[in-house]
Amino acid sequence: MASQQTTNGQSTISLGQEFTQMVIDATGPKTNPRLREVMSCFIQHIHDFAREINLTADEWMMAVQMINRCGQMSDEKRNEGQLLCDVIGLESLVDDITYTTAVNSGQSVTSSAILGPFYRHDHPIRPNGTTISFDTPADAEPVFMFGRVLSADGKPLANASVEAWQASTNGLYEQQDPNQQDLNLRGKFITDAEGKYSFYCIRPTPYPIPNDGPSGQLLEMLDRHNWRPAHIHLVVQAEGYKPVTTQIFDKDSKYLDDDSVFAVKNNLRVEFVPRKGDPQAALELEYNIGLAPLDK
Amino acid sequence: MASQQTTNGQSTISLGQEFTQMVIDATGPKTNPRLREVMSCFIQHIHDFAREINLTADEWMMAVQMINRCGQMSDEKRNEGQLLCDVIGLESLVDDITYTTAVNSGQSVTSSAILGPFYRHDHPIRPNGTTISFDTPADAEPVFMFGRVLSADGKPLANASVEAWQASTNGLYEQQDPNQQDLNLRGKFITDAEGKYSFYCIRPTPYPIPNDGPSGQLLEMLDRHNWRPAHIHLVVQAEGYKPVTTQIFDKDSKYLDDDSVFAVKNNLRVEFVPRKGDPQAALELEYNIGLAPLDK
Repeated sequence: MASQQTTNGQSTISLGQEFTQMVIDATGPKTNPRLREVMSCFIQHIHDFAREINLTADEWMMAVQMINRCGQMSDEKRNEGQLLCDVIGLESLVDDITYTTAVNSGQSVTSSAILGPFYRHDHPIRPNGTTISFDTPADAEPVFMFGRVLSADGKPLANASVEAWQASTNGLYEQQDPNQQDLNLRGKFITDAEGKYSFYCIRPTPYPIPNDGPSGQLLEMLDRHNWRPAHIHLVVQAEGYKPVTTQIFDKDSKYLDDDSVFAVKNNLRVEFVPRKGDPQAALELEYNIGLAPLDK
Repeated sequence: MASQQTTNGQSTISLGQEFTQMVIDATGPKTNPRLREVMSCFIQHIHDFAREINLTADEWMMAVQMINRCGQMSDEKRNEGQLLCDVIGLESLVDDITYTTAVNSGQSVTSSAILGPFYRHDHPIRPNGTTISFDTPADAEPVFMFGRVLSADGKPLANASVEAWQASTNGLYEQQDPNQQDLNLRGKFITDAEGKYSFYCIRPTPYPIPNDGPSGQLLEMLDRHNWRPAHIHLVVQAEGYKPVTTQIFDKDSKYLDDDSVFAVKNNLRVEFVPRKGDPQAALELEYNIGLAPLDK
């Protein structure tokens, strides 16, 4: 006849590294090797985290509910799980890692993941020198943006595509805002024989990321604001070269040093300067993009 | 006039520890100290993980989508985020940490988080010696379960409550199964003057955790099965004592050594033994529970 007693009254965490190794070793032989590597590392770190901080079941359950709420408010137009990662710097970090890994291993940097939640795949090709700003609000400062797409050794790249998108001065991208026309502040431009592109846009302005979900709640709990510095998104591609996905930041913007999603890098700060003799824009921005060749 | 070049062609991850420290230091002065501590540790580990494994943006986005899907399929009856944590051993770990922390700090172990997704707060109080099994299926083996609730020094505790719940032989808890009556295989029993409780239940059987969501998908990708060994859930409480939330496992069950949620501990294995002269049950289980006093 069995008789067991709980171990109440004792005081040692029994699930140490031996337990973690058991969880890692549960992975079967048919697992993809990369998945095994990633999950082993993740399990090790998440267990170490829990032990280091003495994470309680209540705290863990708060996190679980937060994660569940992220999914519940995500749809085609919104990715709250992504945003939650952004506010702890994770997207910026994997962006950097992906870029570096790709450069080092000779693979392409093709990933829609690092585009942010407001990218659209159907940006219309517009002629160079035209505008992406329609319904331009009265408080917007029009900008003439231009430059060249070049190979790493300085050769101009013709037929490269430059995609640009930005929020309006009310802080909203067109798909968030019923008052903006479809595809407003978005365009794709193809470089000419000299590698040149150009278009009119507006000077970007800071905007807050949504604060109605777990990400906003976390920011508030961490006593942080939810603003992003003024930026324009870019994707630049040319045949035979590694694509570049990036954001460029107005060097005079607020929040450059405390971007709520930690995306600012020093070499991505740009200066909008006065433009003379152009009735369409009193500011201009020259921005050249260098592309590295695809290794084979 | 500004002119910037992307850093394409270079090959150093620029977001190292300095970046991580910046994210940690973004936390404002009004944050709850414990939250600051937990989030600092989490950010450090999740960044270290990403750097150690060279996590790519595509891999990260797969995880984000998995997390979003967890939320999308969770509701009052199902917590897929919890289940996802369970299959990497995290609930078992925080359970252990919480228990140990509470014992060491003199706090109570009151948390609904570690009860698992099938707990109900409205278990009916039933008289000792009665059954929790209604609509008992033909393949079930009835068990007479009994024992005493004791203080750490062996004193019987009267008026302690023993809550028990279990899945039926089809692997489903009553709220998952329209063919079981409400509150089937659930009950709460109050100990008598000698600290004794007793009830009839059924011998538990192994069952698979749901495989229709991200948790099941992860298990499949990790080449693991989704079965749990046979167990009965218990919550035991007495005034002035720390509550115990636990699961007891049939020592002859399959999957004891490879529980898909890693909840088995050696001292929670129990033996169902033959019972003589009882037309209601051919098996019995004696299980005594020791409770530690609440420190003050």
